[in-house]
Amino acid sequence: MSETIPTAAVLLIGDEILSGRTKDANLGFIADYMTTLGIDLKEARVVSDDEADIVAALNALRARYTYVFTTGGIGPTHDDITADCVAKAFGVGIDHHPEAVAVLREHFAARGLPETEARMRMARIPDTAELIPNAVSKAPGFHIGNVFVMAGVPKIMQSMLEAVTPKLTGGRKMLSRTIPLNLGEGDVAAPLKAIQAAHDGVMIGSYPFEGQDGSFGTNIVVRSRDEANMNAAADEVAKIPETLNAKPADEAWS
Amino acid sequence: MSETIPTAAVLLIGDEILSGRTKDANLGFIADYMTTLGIDLKEARVVSDDEADIVAALNALRARYTYVFTTGGIGPTHDDITADCVAKAFGVGIDHHPEAVAVLREHFAARGLPETEARMRMARIPDTAELIPNAVSKAPGFHIGNVFVMAGVPKIMQSMLEAVTPKLTGGRKMLSRTIPLNLGEGDVAAPLKAIQAAHDGVMIGSYPFEGQDGSFGTNIVVRSRDEANMNAAADEVAKIPETLNAKPADEAWS
Repeated sequence: MSETIPTAAVLLIGDEILSGRTKDANLGFIADYMTTLGIDLKEARVVSDDEADIVAALNALRARYTYVFTTGGIGPTHDDITADCVAKAFGVGIDHHPEAVAVLREHFAARGLPETEARMRMARIPDTAELIPNAVSKAPGFHIGNVFVMAGVPKIMQSMLEAVTPKLTGGRKMLSRTIPLNLGEGDVAAPLKAIQAAHDGVMIGSYPFEGQDGSFGTNIVVRSRDEANMNAAADEVAKIPETLNAKPADEAWS
Repeated sequence: MSETIPTAAVLLIGDEILSGRTKDANLGFIADYMTTLGIDLKEARVVSDDEADIVAALNALRARYTYVFTTGGIGPTHDDITADCVAKAFGVGIDHHPEAVAVLREHFAARGLPETEARMRMARIPDTAELIPNAVSKAPGFHIGNVFVMAGVPKIMQSMLEAVTPKLTGGRKMLSRTIPLNLGEGDVAAPLKAIQAAHDGVMIGSYPFEGQDGSFGTNIVVRSRDEANMNAAADEVAKIPETLNAKPADEAWS
């Protein structure tokens, strides 16, 4: 296939994930979302609230992938340094964005909240960036070049991702079929390798599982952007039990 | 503090996490575990089942951090290429490890499973590496240099992490106190910044939350390896509501 498939990376920013205090919920959501859009999520990184680390990761990822999605570090407190890091990575200035100021001012006024310097910090946006609306709590994200900067709170991140979707160019959607086999990975490995070798443009993954009744098996996931190719390989996978002297799967998995 | 704090990185290997099909459960577990050991988890990466990407990530991380923990890609199927990538990253050969062969042979024999080439693939270990026992399904992990290679199945990974713990040197344990405040981040930002500035060696993080009753607030997490320093800062944080004209927190968070 000569078509170009857009790629993406995710950069999760924040000490709280690396310390274990917060269990990340954003990567899985973005991964599902990219799959739906036909964008290949190729890499994810988690870095702490450290300027040099954030800038280095941003520059490595934005140079390599079509899109970069960041989450976290855009609140009003001293540990929120993502916007400054993005400005630094792009070599642009950062200042209060008039539209962001207006949105926040209206929001705070309606709630009788004083317009403090800290609150208005959330209106600081790198030069040339465009805002990403925040349907939940108003303080916007932004995008600049191929980098989309979103909040860390999952429901806000999700609303921002939906808001930027019209700006993303998806590719032909990756299709997948999952074939659960009542066989261990050690049983399916050889036939699976042969099927993989015979089917270009199809990716075959093998994932052991333990059923609720304690039985073991292997889910075979066949992926392709071409439905006929996917089905041809998947149909062969489904016949593996017949071709083997089928026996119950056991725990010979790793 | 002149003491050296050991650092760590996690490398999650596998298409299934980036496609969204599998939601990672290993990072959070390893993060908690490192915190308990007094090891600073500084970075995590997720890469797909691609040799060049895995080798590059391994070499970047092992050069920078005290320990690197990988999960995934050590099963018997064609998409399990972690062991080969580690051998390549270290520039060593890879072959069937006698001890791993013996463990697997006994395990398969006891279960009446044929000793196939695919099954014995799980005994392929980079030269000079030492095995990590697998209490769940026998196929071992291994460690070489400062890299610890573990299974992707969470309960196996957890058993391997426990098995290697005696080989890890922990630092002084990071302590933390969490102070829930019934205030928005915009309210606490200014006093928090002042407290942070006044307390070297203490890290103060701010995390908005939504209570079950729909109320909003902010958890302030104060971390330090020195208990007295932590408590001094945390006590000041706890007094923020008194010093402000305390009002109910609202959704002025991002």
